[in-house]
Amino acid sequence: MQPYELSLAEAADAIGAGHLSPVELTESVLARMEATEPLVNAYAAVTADSAREQAAAAEREIAAGRRRGPLHGVPMALKDLIDTAGVVTASGSAVRAGRIPDRDAAVTARLKRAGAVLVGKAHTHEFAYGLTTPQTRNPWAPDRVPGGSSGGSAAAVAAGSATFALGTDTGGSIRVPAALTGTVGLKPTYGLVPREGVAALSWSLDHVGPITRTVRDAGLVLEAIAERGAGGGGLEGVRVGVPSDYFFDRVDPQVEAAVRTALDRMADLGARLVDVQIPLHRYVQAVQWGLMVPEATAYHAAQLGDAPELYGDDVRVLLEAGALLPAVDHIRAQRARTLMRREWEALLGQVDLIAAPTVPATAAQAGQEVFGWPDGTVEAVADAYVRLCAPANITGLPALSLPVGLDLDGLPIGMQLIGRPYGEAALLGVAGAYEREFGPAPRAEVDARLVAKK
Amino acid sequence: MQPYELSLAEAADAIGAGHLSPVELTESVLARMEATEPLVNAYAAVTADSAREQAAAAEREIAAGRRRGPLHGVPMALKDLIDTAGVVTASGSAVRAGRIPDRDAAVTARLKRAGAVLVGKAHTHEFAYGLTTPQTRNPWAPDRVPGGSSGGSAAAVAAGSATFALGTDTGGSIRVPAALTGTVGLKPTYGLVPREGVAALSWSLDHVGPITRTVRDAGLVLEAIAERGAGGGGLEGVRVGVPSDYFFDRVDPQVEAAVRTALDRMADLGARLVDVQIPLHRYVQAVQWGLMVPEATAYHAAQLGDAPELYGDDVRVLLEAGALLPAVDHIRAQRARTLMRREWEALLGQVDLIAAPTVPATAAQAGQEVFGWPDGTVEAVADAYVRLCAPANITGLPALSLPVGLDLDGLPIGMQLIGRPYGEAALLGVAGAYEREFGPAPRAEVDARLVAKK
Repeated sequence: MQPYELSLAEAADAIGAGHLSPVELTESVLARMEATEPLVNAYAAVTADSAREQAAAAEREIAAGRRRGPLHGVPMALKDLIDTAGVVTASGSAVRAGRIPDRDAAVTARLKRAGAVLVGKAHTHEFAYGLTTPQTRNPWAPDRVPGGSSGGSAAAVAAGSATFALGTDTGGSIRVPAALTGTVGLKPTYGLVPREGVAALSWSLDHVGPITRTVRDAGLVLEAIAERGAGGGGLEGVRVGVPSDYFFDRVDPQVEAAVRTALDRMADLGARLVDVQIPLHRYVQAVQWGLMVPEATAYHAAQLGDAPELYGDDVRVLLEAGALLPAVDHIRAQRARTLMRREWEALLGQVDLIAAPTVPATAAQAGQEVFGWPDGTVEAVADAYVRLCAPANITGLPALSLPVGLDLDGLPIGMQLIGRPYGEAALLGVAGAYEREFGPAPRAEVDARLVAKK
Repeated sequence: MQPYELSLAEAADAIGAGHLSPVELTESVLARMEATEPLVNAYAAVTADSAREQAAAAEREIAAGRRRGPLHGVPMALKDLIDTAGVVTASGSAVRAGRIPDRDAAVTARLKRAGAVLVGKAHTHEFAYGLTTPQTRNPWAPDRVPGGSSGGSAAAVAAGSATFALGTDTGGSIRVPAALTGTVGLKPTYGLVPREGVAALSWSLDHVGPITRTVRDAGLVLEAIAERGAGGGGLEGVRVGVPSDYFFDRVDPQVEAAVRTALDRMADLGARLVDVQIPLHRYVQAVQWGLMVPEATAYHAAQLGDAPELYGDDVRVLLEAGALLPAVDHIRAQRARTLMRREWEALLGQVDLIAAPTVPATAAQAGQEVFGWPDGTVEAVADAYVRLCAPANITGLPALSLPVGLDLDGLPIGMQLIGRPYGEAALLGVAGAYEREFGPAPRAEVDARLVAKK
């Protein structure tokens, strides 16, 4: 087993025990990056030289008995939306080409304090305003998208070219790529993780969070970026709400089957499955887009007036459309959000968490525009990917995606767990109990496919 | 001295000592109402019969040794925006003519629990969307407006046809009429007093609060509606911020002189006056209107589509204009508010409170549309009245208006004190210390004018 194959927790244990050095781990990850990047293209910028320096410094500190914690000396990728002092941060856009921030984002600073080693900036859908990340390919199948907008982050973790990564999530942008790449993605409770120095998409819906190989790793990264403990319980006696509507509508049968199998397994491990109804679900799409679209336009207003041609067509059209939305509609969306928050909090008084698919389908083909559903309807890929993730953005509730199997094409399937406000520890506890029993997504297949299709 | 002339605190003391009965007090207030209403027209609805029943019940309870507190058996007026079960609540609009709520507003219920006696519903500018309350005349001069939108509440208290009243304040609607009628008006911290059952003007700017004869009375009412203690300190050693900009720009010289005299008196009583600069004041008007106008339209959207002709012309035009505002402008106003809140909180780290005029001019003539300023500019009456009040609505900070003299026409002048979040006790303490030394507004003149002009 090569060091790049280790999870964050495994690497940390090996470093702590003196069996692995940060330099060794970083070199392994950089070599893996060299092998996989021609195919995957997860990175907008690679910082190999400074990564080697940071790894060497970590090695010296640890040797001197000053180990900072589990992230010390471990290679990470940061989504290109997240400022890194002295390193180009372009948000995947020509608008910010070559932009080098003076200061680290708050989360960057926290991860550096924890001793993590930055190996590069991961591709994002332009300004996080899309669900595919067209620059990057899915490591499980290079003809497929990795999802988005944190597609580069998830692809890097899945490919082994980063031990862990950060993404951002406004309508599923951490959870969608995590689901499509067989990784773990955690969108924390709104406001828990600071967003200073992270380009905004929609202030009232944006979240920063980890993308990792395992649930345990997600907890370790969350502890560093939220600066609070994230240890959890288990599955025994936990009341898991299983939606009887919305979350299983227009879902690929293979995805549904995998999630229902995972639910049965959770029950076998001691969870109590409870049928629940999802409140106000007919407003989800209107509220998500009604909040996001004008907020995104407000953020880009000045730039959009100056040089609209610098945006990609898909993003520019959305930004221009946002200028036409009346304030009363945005206010109506804000009011509906208040009602939805209230109803969801009541729902989470009856159960400890909600379990459901993360996305209704596995990874789309590059360039694919719609999914066709068994009921004869057709849905845009972006709408389908946002559909089941948006409730946790609107309500601000923490939500985690973890891998629960592969479809017949060998593509990963994600299950989503949605918890109570600031209930990250409980979510991680439940997902961790599942993972301990059934393991994270297989890794060997990633490599086999990469080699086969290269 | 007639019972209707007593302040709330005086009446409560007399009732507590057994020198005055609730029935006697209520009859005196109702008789006063009969004398003043033909001239003042403060009331949209009078509830004399049920007031007599409530007063008799209060009298029995008190006689039986079950006195509830200082409000028990004391007559009050509620702004017609505030729901009263079984009593018409029309918000001053043909849209809600004859509407009888099933339930009390939260503040109504709290005041009833405290034993207060409802004598009537006070006129409001239609749906609180205006600063004049054209139905009602100013008790100090019947050719003048009482201010608005809580004009009926303030006029009733000033005329003696209620011992105290509640108003609502979105851009000064408690403080403006308090200033123009020589009463005390308190806009509490945003969120402190519940708004359930009160018609909304702008969710993010609306507040409910007392209009009273004295500062001490305002504290007693606040304790009942906020369900928390409101006792305060004094003036000794208090750092009073005196704005060197914004709050004394385009202010009538007589108003400025009266406020500066009051400031000198506060210094004589031990306060330390500190020059301060007002942050981001050039955005106040845009933010206030940018928040209020579309929020009001959102509240009225359905009704406005069904029967626009039921609104008064001034209100309908504002509501229709609100539909045209783009969401990005509303979002920009929300962002500016966040910055203003932050800057004001920093300012209130340097001083304990800010003192300034409440409004830049005394009561306008009925029908007057503009004020002319010494610098040659002209300003709409509504804009002038909102201008110095809006900062406390935008920031949510508590603000109190108290009378500090009369102009050469014998019209009251108000001084505004703006405090820290949830700093009502400190505000009431400072204003109370001033009031103990210099007394509330004179009362005899009110009567003389009423009689003279009747």
